[in-house]
Amino acid sequence: MQEKLEQLKNTLAELADIGGALALLGWDQQTYMPPGGAEARGQQSGTLGKIAQQMATSPELGKLLDELKPYGESLDPDSDEARLIKFAIRDYEQATRVPVAFVVEQAQVTALANQAWAEARARSNFAHFQPHLEKIVDLTHRFIGFFPPADHPYDTLLDNFEPEMKTAEVKQIFEGLRPQQVAIIKAIAEKPQVDDSFLHQPFDEQKQWDFGVEVITKFGYDWNRGRQDKAPHPFTNGASINDVRITTRINPTFLNPMLFGTMHESGHAMYGQGHGANLERTNLANGASLGIHESQSRMWENLVGRSLPFWQHFYPRLQEVFPQLGSVDLDTFYKGINKVHPSLIRVEADEATYNLHIMLRLEIEIAVIEGKLAVKDLPEYWNAKMDEYLGLTPPDDAQGVLQDIHWSWGMFGYFSTYALGNLISLQLWEKINADIPDLDDQMRAGEFAALLGWLREKIHVHGRKFMPQELVQRVTGSKIDPGPYVRYLQKKYGEIYGL
Amino acid sequence: MQEKLEQLKNTLAELADIGGALALLGWDQQTYMPPGGAEARGQQSGTLGKIAQQMATSPELGKLLDELKPYGESLDPDSDEARLIKFAIRDYEQATRVPVAFVVEQAQVTALANQAWAEARARSNFAHFQPHLEKIVDLTHRFIGFFPPADHPYDTLLDNFEPEMKTAEVKQIFEGLRPQQVAIIKAIAEKPQVDDSFLHQPFDEQKQWDFGVEVITKFGYDWNRGRQDKAPHPFTNGASINDVRITTRINPTFLNPMLFGTMHESGHAMYGQGHGANLERTNLANGASLGIHESQSRMWENLVGRSLPFWQHFYPRLQEVFPQLGSVDLDTFYKGINKVHPSLIRVEADEATYNLHIMLRLEIEIAVIEGKLAVKDLPEYWNAKMDEYLGLTPPDDAQGVLQDIHWSWGMFGYFSTYALGNLISLQLWEKINADIPDLDDQMRAGEFAALLGWLREKIHVHGRKFMPQELVQRVTGSKIDPGPYVRYLQKKYGEIYGL
Repeated sequence: MQEKLEQLKNTLAELADIGGALALLGWDQQTYMPPGGAEARGQQSGTLGKIAQQMATSPELGKLLDELKPYGESLDPDSDEARLIKFAIRDYEQATRVPVAFVVEQAQVTALANQAWAEARARSNFAHFQPHLEKIVDLTHRFIGFFPPADHPYDTLLDNFEPEMKTAEVKQIFEGLRPQQVAIIKAIAEKPQVDDSFLHQPFDEQKQWDFGVEVITKFGYDWNRGRQDKAPHPFTNGASINDVRITTRINPTFLNPMLFGTMHESGHAMYGQGHGANLERTNLANGASLGIHESQSRMWENLVGRSLPFWQHFYPRLQEVFPQLGSVDLDTFYKGINKVHPSLIRVEADEATYNLHIMLRLEIEIAVIEGKLAVKDLPEYWNAKMDEYLGLTPPDDAQGVLQDIHWSWGMFGYFSTYALGNLISLQLWEKINADIPDLDDQMRAGEFAALLGWLREKIHVHGRKFMPQELVQRVTGSKIDPGPYVRYLQKKYGEIYGL
Repeated sequence: MQEKLEQLKNTLAELADIGGALALLGWDQQTYMPPGGAEARGQQSGTLGKIAQQMATSPELGKLLDELKPYGESLDPDSDEARLIKFAIRDYEQATRVPVAFVVEQAQVTALANQAWAEARARSNFAHFQPHLEKIVDLTHRFIGFFPPADHPYDTLLDNFEPEMKTAEVKQIFEGLRPQQVAIIKAIAEKPQVDDSFLHQPFDEQKQWDFGVEVITKFGYDWNRGRQDKAPHPFTNGASINDVRITTRINPTFLNPMLFGTMHESGHAMYGQGHGANLERTNLANGASLGIHESQSRMWENLVGRSLPFWQHFYPRLQEVFPQLGSVDLDTFYKGINKVHPSLIRVEADEATYNLHIMLRLEIEIAVIEGKLAVKDLPEYWNAKMDEYLGLTPPDDAQGVLQDIHWSWGMFGYFSTYALGNLISLQLWEKINADIPDLDDQMRAGEFAALLGWLREKIHVHGRKFMPQELVQRVTGSKIDPGPYVRYLQKKYGEIYGL
């Protein structure tokens, strides 16, 4: 059986190698690739993807896994090997359910849909995208049909991004969140607005870059196993546990994109760099889910990077780098970077309103999958919900239903992971503050080693060994729960806005 | 048969895709990869290389090629398809001759040898490298044994880099070159030396970079299908015809490395960018040989970039960028960049002495393969030859027999392609000047379109369709011949040194 396990590990190692190569091809495509190289890059990625797909669905692998299954079940269920076999079986079953012809069709439909979406958004013309989105919804229904019936058809979609998460769970979590989050926003709207005009002025680009680097170096981002480059849409890219790169963008007249974007990506990247060396070249050297990943990026961006203790340490340094902030005191700065202001665009939303953007999308996706909402009616539904949740009406569809790229890629089931990440980050944060009672003092001293050490030990090192709910339960003692997040918003924004 | 041909083309396209991905992995490794990523990168490249090797030696491919062979022979022998089939058969036969176990052993031996070489060079201790080089020589003999007996065992090694080139041919070519080249160097040594001290002074790095970019943009390097980055050892890297990148290095107190290095790499890269679009994703989208490749890089570096007409156009611009050259007149500058000065290190050698470094290496390799020279005697042999050809004795082995990395990689048979490239570049140059009689005037006007157009049409567009000797014969009417190169050296250096 040891020999068969070695066989499996070799196959998984080769799959990890191809995955790492694909990651690098993608990184390059979004950073340095010359424009003329796009078509060849598509072919290279397509061929590597096809080879990986063939390896991941080969009958030989299936036979090997059948033989290893009882052995895996005989092991300590928390051991690396038990988990490695369990996830290999899960991945194999999922990969083999979807016919190759469907994967090809989907790639073709989404390639065209993605192009149509970009055109539709540029012209703010939903009708141009509508037939493509209808095809994608049709494909999505067929995709669901390849899997055994679940409690809810949307479960199958969620499972792609948040393994084993159920639609009913997410709905319940969001039900517990929405009324209180809406109430906070309404209360804030009745108070005088804080000033953030000082964030909108010229900031030297190189100095912005250097300040971001200084911050995440103190966080503990490992430059020996990573690097930072510029990209129009920042992302984190891991070709290996030992090569996790980040990207940032710099707005020359607005400090926030670089500042919080860099911290956000460093959170993703430190998670990737923190997976145990024992997991390298296995199927477990990944995040537990997109939600868990987002909990890490949001924690460093918001719970650390938008906190008062953090700025008690870093604000004098920021003022030194940017003397134009000399006349802005810490309290004003802190309130400015935490300004709550309902807005139309998700990616520009503040901490207090962000989740409502997500809930809107989740409701639409579920209604579409349930057949209760036709694609053609999306703009109207969108605008009505925006009014209900945020009191805003998009002036056009480009700033409404067409704003996100995800649906054109066929990524139904993705959005809720953003909000789940926010919630998880607070559950972890409460636990961390219990375990490290002087965390605020440490942040005031620019010390983050204990925080990163905690995250490494409790979250990062496990990679994908545990299901997301299982991991949250193990670490915090309860499943995903909106309570800590609501308490956090109430306290933080209560203080800032005097609620 | 059309269906089988499509099958072959699909396989070749996938092999090209994997090759392109491997090229990108290599590019990244030498430009942006964080140090910690090295081990994972080695594994990723190893796995992709193994997959490509399996595809390239699969019995299915062999069967397909057996079936297609008579069809290929029935086609116009100059057609793309006839050549594609011919080279696919050649590559398959070569790939299947070498057992996988040998390839693995070779990779292990050379990995250790490469490390030992770096240590040995750092300590100038040949004895440290000697046992590794002995193993490599042994592997090289075994490698030769996998192939049918040739006129000379070294033919098999040459064939890897300069297809179908024979040892006897190369020896004959070099015999015709050496006495005359040695005579030129001796004659120069008796004349007063030219001044090049002005090349050794501080030059702003960004301005150096920008000037190099300006030059190769005028040459016609296509930035839409390429880019330039910095690397300690400059190289050109083609992941596709439409993505051919170059690298350069900048010495802050010496102008030549950036200046001639950038032009050199642009020559390689324009060759790669010039392969016909019809060859993309086939086995023909490559250079005809390393020698032909070097003829392109050397042409732009030396025949263009070290010529008087070129500098009649560019020198005023260079003086504008670097006012410190204001007091150096064009004639002095031209002589300075063409200074002939026998030196110990090949990569720093000038145009007139470079080939002698190559001949020395070729003689050593042939003597070793013939069993007439033992590895342990290499340093002594090297030093004696250096004295004979260049009148110099290396003070230590680091500046002698240990200077090049090639042998540690097992690359016997490679060096002569550098000298062949020099010779070919002059044969082409004579033809070009006959076809474009006002080329000098064009260069004086900063016009290179006709030159690049000629190279595209006669050389670049064919990719690897023709064997190197065949290509030289087609284009110039004769095989590789040292005559034009000797005449060039005599005329150019006769004028510069007043011989």
